[in-house]
Amino acid sequence: MHSQPDALAMLPSWRLGPTRDAIVEFLGASSAIDPADRVAVFDNDGTLWCEKPAYPQLAFFLHELGAAVKANPALAERAEYAALLRRDDAAVAALGIGRVALALAELFEGIDPRAFSELSYQFIHQGTHPTLGRPFAGTVYQPMLELLDALRAHGFATFIVSGGGTEFVRAISSSLYGIAPEGVVGTLIGYEFRNEGGAPSLVRTASLTGEANEGAAKVVHIQQHLGRRPVFAAGNSVGDREMIEWAMAASGPTLGLLVDHDDAEREFAYVSVAGTFESDENIVDIAQREGWAVASIRNDWAQVFPA
Amino acid sequence: MHSQPDALAMLPSWRLGPTRDAIVEFLGASSAIDPADRVAVFDNDGTLWCEKPAYPQLAFFLHELGAAVKANPALAERAEYAALLRRDDAAVAALGIGRVALALAELFEGIDPRAFSELSYQFIHQGTHPTLGRPFAGTVYQPMLELLDALRAHGFATFIVSGGGTEFVRAISSSLYGIAPEGVVGTLIGYEFRNEGGAPSLVRTASLTGEANEGAAKVVHIQQHLGRRPVFAAGNSVGDREMIEWAMAASGPTLGLLVDHDDAEREFAYVSVAGTFESDENIVDIAQREGWAVASIRNDWAQVFPA
Repeated sequence: MHSQPDALAMLPSWRLGPTRDAIVEFLGASSAIDPADRVAVFDNDGTLWCEKPAYPQLAFFLHELGAAVKANPALAERAEYAALLRRDDAAVAALGIGRVALALAELFEGIDPRAFSELSYQFIHQGTHPTLGRPFAGTVYQPMLELLDALRAHGFATFIVSGGGTEFVRAISSSLYGIAPEGVVGTLIGYEFRNEGGAPSLVRTASLTGEANEGAAKVVHIQQHLGRRPVFAAGNSVGDREMIEWAMAASGPTLGLLVDHDDAEREFAYVSVAGTFESDENIVDIAQREGWAVASIRNDWAQVFPA
Repeated sequence: MHSQPDALAMLPSWRLGPTRDAIVEFLGASSAIDPADRVAVFDNDGTLWCEKPAYPQLAFFLHELGAAVKANPALAERAEYAALLRRDDAAVAALGIGRVALALAELFEGIDPRAFSELSYQFIHQGTHPTLGRPFAGTVYQPMLELLDALRAHGFATFIVSGGGTEFVRAISSSLYGIAPEGVVGTLIGYEFRNEGGAPSLVRTASLTGEANEGAAKVVHIQQHLGRRPVFAAGNSVGDREMIEWAMAASGPTLGLLVDHDDAEREFAYVSVAGTFESDENIVDIAQREGWAVASIRNDWAQVFPA
């Protein structure tokens, strides 16, 4: 008989409790799942790494905006950039997040994918998180790294399904999580292929291709990009709800996992709220009602970040 | 020193000659390529398997159309289906290939991705090629299977970049080529996510998401879906030209490979022609002018199909 990896030994940063039990039980049951169906998807911001006080991608874009304004001070007059430079959340909201995000995308218009990837990689590996006193690359969650490894040891293919920019996440997915570029599903920027005089080039546009990767779009994009239905999904916000519900409703053993940010001391304390007209239920309440495993950072994680 | 796999021994169906030499030379030089950049992309129809007298995907769709008409004879009156059922190429062309393709996509509207995948898999593994006397699954090219394996043995990630439907190709990519669903980039069908009463479902629509995966779109989609630039690309038609040029213009060792269908006896004899207003140059002439390796089926392949 083929012996199972020791799931418990692979999760040293997870404290004893029902959430660790649920993970160990799922890993133990996974031998019953067809290897081709062992698919695990993870949200990134707030699930695999810290997303507060601001998304690392936003910190990177603001860093690049600062450099662009230094080179061309007139840029600071543009409404979207002015609101960002003043850290004026109300003005950003009034302009619309979408419009502001596209203005930031314009900073990278015309560059090739590798140049964008190198800028992103440098910032995340060398830039320092504003409050945690470590590089952004060190704000990944140690228990989730262990979970990624434990899933792989049980034959799972592991993927990232992020609301962030696909190319930004890809720039750091191999170094931080051991996930190849093609294993990242996110919000896609458009490209233009040119071939003038036998010198082909591919350059970023400032337009999105398709919908932002949140909510039901995550489920559609999982199918379109990965072609397989997950049986494990982890997230931390209402934008992950449909993806987790989709994974949990698959046949055979499944697991949905929510990271609950309830540790103001070691990380941040906050919760994602649906905020629709029908419901302002928060994601922890939704998770508990629907029977997801909930990882309380305060109670379930002996260690939050890598040593 | 790390010893190289024996490239030559891995290519028994390739005859001695400049094309096999070019492949062996590229494989030998690949140790100089960063492992993360060892990316190889293959067109499918006419490159990895036989596409004549009709694309296997079209044969599958016609098979399903036949079943649908049997269940509902009124369908045969619809102009697109009537033209297909009469095998009336002129009428199909007059209606427009795009319109006819979308009419065929309607046959699968509302079904879930797994059901589509199972129908496709069954047809390819059980349906018989009309002239070659073997199942469609047996019309893969033995020399290309060997090349896929040799590339993998040299640390390459191998992907399919097909003009065909992504989901159709995924249904057979693991069994025929050892390529996982997420390694297939093709023409994407849209999906709709529904969640009524806590029973989430994902169903096919009859609309495409984004552009058909041909020509320059192949380059854009390689970046968007795989996130890496290939250094090896293989194709057989003008729809593969940009992808091959893109791979060949990467820095370091690169190889572009064209499959030349010049063997009417063992396979089919035909050539893809640009057919634009500017040029009606055929793809073999383009390949020779641009210095791609050309695999003549007649001269370079000792064996065409698996035994």
